[in-house]
Amino acid sequence: MSILVVGSVAFDSIETPHGRVDHVLGGAATFFSLSASYFTDVRVIGVVGEDFSAENEAVLTKRGIDTRGIEHVPGKSFHWTGSYLKNLNEAQTLKTDLNVFETFAPKIPAAYEDSDFLFLANIDPVLQASVRAQMPKVRMVCGDTMNYWIHDHRANLEKVLVGLDALLINDGEAKMLAGDDNLKRAAEKILATGPKTLVIKHGEYGASAFFSERSFAGGAGKPGFTVVPFRAPALPLDSVVDPTGAGDSFAGGFFGYIASQPELTPAVFKRAMFYGGVMGSFAVEKFGTERMQELSREEIDARFERLREHSHLD
Amino acid sequence: MSILVVGSVAFDSIETPHGRVDHVLGGAATFFSLSASYFTDVRVIGVVGEDFSAENEAVLTKRGIDTRGIEHVPGKSFHWTGSYLKNLNEAQTLKTDLNVFETFAPKIPAAYEDSDFLFLANIDPVLQASVRAQMPKVRMVCGDTMNYWIHDHRANLEKVLVGLDALLINDGEAKMLAGDDNLKRAAEKILATGPKTLVIKHGEYGASAFFSERSFAGGAGKPGFTVVPFRAPALPLDSVVDPTGAGDSFAGGFFGYIASQPELTPAVFKRAMFYGGVMGSFAVEKFGTERMQELSREEIDARFERLREHSHLD
Repeated sequence: MSILVVGSVAFDSIETPHGRVDHVLGGAATFFSLSASYFTDVRVIGVVGEDFSAENEAVLTKRGIDTRGIEHVPGKSFHWTGSYLKNLNEAQTLKTDLNVFETFAPKIPAAYEDSDFLFLANIDPVLQASVRAQMPKVRMVCGDTMNYWIHDHRANLEKVLVGLDALLINDGEAKMLAGDDNLKRAAEKILATGPKTLVIKHGEYGASAFFSERSFAGGAGKPGFTVVPFRAPALPLDSVVDPTGAGDSFAGGFFGYIASQPELTPAVFKRAMFYGGVMGSFAVEKFGTERMQELSREEIDARFERLREHSHLD
Repeated sequence: MSILVVGSVAFDSIETPHGRVDHVLGGAATFFSLSASYFTDVRVIGVVGEDFSAENEAVLTKRGIDTRGIEHVPGKSFHWTGSYLKNLNEAQTLKTDLNVFETFAPKIPAAYEDSDFLFLANIDPVLQASVRAQMPKVRMVCGDTMNYWIHDHRANLEKVLVGLDALLINDGEAKMLAGDDNLKRAAEKILATGPKTLVIKHGEYGASAFFSERSFAGGAGKPGFTVVPFRAPALPLDSVVDPTGAGDSFAGGFFGYIASQPELTPAVFKRAMFYGGVMGSFAVEKFGTERMQELSREEIDARFERLREHSHLD
């Protein structure tokens, strides 16, 4: 099965306690694609400038990712400058140069129209809604967002949430979106606004899925169904070199695994949460996309087993 | 098997977003004892003043807890005043009246000398060491501590750490004790200073155990043994009324379960981590010790099963 992802393909300049890198390949769609490519076919929609080289594109195509939806336009690519020197768990944005991303108008190539799954990475909800509307036949749609859209573009975002099978956000975003500091109550409020399932990423503590009665086929209308949570833990890591892209890599592992399975069952969803955690844990081991380019399915599955053992009771 | 616990028996005045209570029964030894009492026999050593009533003591004795080690002296009991209005995850201490606790010199009644397990709650490490030295025959010793002792009494604390089978602390304390912001590296450094096993409590995200080659009988000298982590998740809670005592209730469930088992195996230790999480989750549902007084083993085991399912992959 194939996943279509729309989002940023960018360059990042990053400083962490482990060092700094300048203008390395980044962007939500890039991390998502590389991560999901270990599980299923991936197609990308994005926009880049003249500074995006054949070598940059080859990072994606070498992993079998279809890049025909990456539009090349005059100007410079989106460039994000950030620091993790103060807090390794939260990026401090030093500079955001939107460049060609400022006028991004996603176009879906004809060859992408038969995509089975759709991932709306963190971009303007107006664009997310536009892409969603152009892909009426997909089996499942997942999406991400961030504080800026929640705070300043809520009405547009709410139109997107209604159509999501799963929303993937972090603790702070969930609390802000729901206006509630209790994570379980926040989850219940968000599920009431549209998404069938909510995935909340807790960074180094793993991630939780909150299921509703609409999460799975046949679940609708079950008497007495209440929100059921599921927690995928995270492995403690010896070293976090660069947290950039961890959340998008989580999403790629999560959705990539789902897309590789014949049916979306609770068991598949739970395993997908663990694969998300595995891919996020790899992403932070090196700067930029470096680690996500060089993995093998064998080492991914070996770490999945370690993660399963990590909180398994006999 | 019986657990001897030494620590504070106190009164707390607490304000949280759910309300406020004045002079309710509290203290680390109190929460620990109530929690452990659902699993095994418990004996307490502490000191209280004239304001500690027969009704207060009956809260413990009704649960079968042996209170002969609670010394009654002239003056007032330890009284802590705290607020969770700013942050439900971290207590803000408004006032600490040590009162009779200031001159606490733990005395071990003869009837306690055959105790099988020893829990050193968060008190001056000099007192922890003194009690430890008077109980040379116990099978297992666990201990707690806090930032104040780590920062200002490190040399005394280090003497206690050397003799611990397990140290139970939270994320911030672990990072401070090790001088390392990475939790896994911090755990490895702490294990190198003495404790055979380290349990780090992550609050609403659960808790991790870090095992060393000395954690279990027969584990010593295994070639290639490295620190192995295990994560017990936490259930997302609808409502946290009062976080006071959650960590001590975790310790009581954890150590109480271990004391109820014939042997300390990795499987027992892992189940103990889950029981710790279960007891911590009950503690916060009502103010003070209220919830910890009224539980049944049946509801404890039912929640244990829910927690097991909560991150279980088939």
